[in-house]
Amino acid sequence: MKVYIVFSHPNHVGMGYAALQSAKKGFEDAGHEVRVTDLYRERDFDPILRYDDPHELINCQTDETFKTYRDNIAWADKLVFIYPIWWGGGPALFKGFIDQVYCSGFAYNFKGIWPHGHLSDKSAWIIVTHDTPWFVARFIQRDYGRIMRGQILRTMFGIKGAKLTSLGFLKRSTPKQREKMLAKIYRIANKA
Amino acid sequence: MKVYIVFSHPNHVGMGYAALQSAKKGFEDAGHEVRVTDLYRERDFDPILRYDDPHELINCQTDETFKTYRDNIAWADKLVFIYPIWWGGGPALFKGFIDQVYCSGFAYNFKGIWPHGHLSDKSAWIIVTHDTPWFVARFIQRDYGRIMRGQILRTMFGIKGAKLTSLGFLKRSTPKQREKMLAKIYRIANKA
Repeated sequence: MKVYIVFSHPNHVGMGYAALQSAKKGFEDAGHEVRVTDLYRERDFDPILRYDDPHELINCQTDETFKTYRDNIAWADKLVFIYPIWWGGGPALFKGFIDQVYCSGFAYNFKGIWPHGHLSDKSAWIIVTHDTPWFVARFIQRDYGRIMRGQILRTMFGIKGAKLTSLGFLKRSTPKQREKMLAKIYRIANKA
Repeated sequence: MKVYIVFSHPNHVGMGYAALQSAKKGFEDAGHEVRVTDLYRERDFDPILRYDDPHELINCQTDETFKTYRDNIAWADKLVFIYPIWWGGGPALFKGFIDQVYCSGFAYNFKGIWPHGHLSDKSAWIIVTHDTPWFVARFIQRDYGRIMRGQILRTMFGIKGAKLTSLGFLKRSTPKQREKMLAKIYRIANKA
């Protein structure tokens, strides 16, 4: 299987990066091929979608600006997104990746008012990290992990049954709890 | 009343900008003082929150980078946010405004695991534009307008009862329908 991971944590010291390592190792130990984009290290990536004079909306058929990312997405059987939840959503940089890369004509197009997703042959896995207590996260919060799974991956891009793994309440977690979370990430990747 | 509007549409030709004009005029006709930040025109605004070596998290007490925005927020009695819903959320640029400007110590701080909001003396109004059919928007969609009202403004910053106005299904709207929407925006602002 070909796996494309987009990692959008600002540094390499926290649980996000540890989750990336666990997922990557899990996939590779099972013989899968893995490509990683470490978004904060992509110096030339501009997250700001402009649509004004003189900026036209990107034409996926001709514009090469984000072609590398689109090629990785097209190449992959499985798309993995790892990012922190800040203010109910991913970092601005990650939002910009969604805004800029998954453009019309590539990831979807509209048939009348209904979106028709072009990525329905792929599976997806979203791994989010956050500090929200689990009882709030489970019953109250509607964060961008869930929005992404339901409204973006499924409704817009046609990817059914994306998995969402929420590594939560990290601020109050013990080393042993974090170790268990990472072992779970490895297991999921390894059996994917 | 002092009103601070943050406008995050990429251009000045669509319904977002028209809504800004209607809201501004409504407030001003009622004698309120209005300040506007047109985020896409803020050439020096960096939406990317970095938190790595050598970037430390911004210390609101000493860092001046986003002081102008924080000063406007502190000055205002009412905060107004106008942005489009793309992929269930605002543009990356707007997400960056939330990530960067509403920092800990200014907009909130934590008391144990619970957030304590510092902006509870203010009211807020969120105006979002989108193309989602109204029946989807009302019953299914959980977008960043609702997340912002509930989880950010209320839970984190202490702003109760923020108003959310959703200008939806714009792609299929008639000029007459859009005119009615703008008149409604004017009325709400004028009676605020």
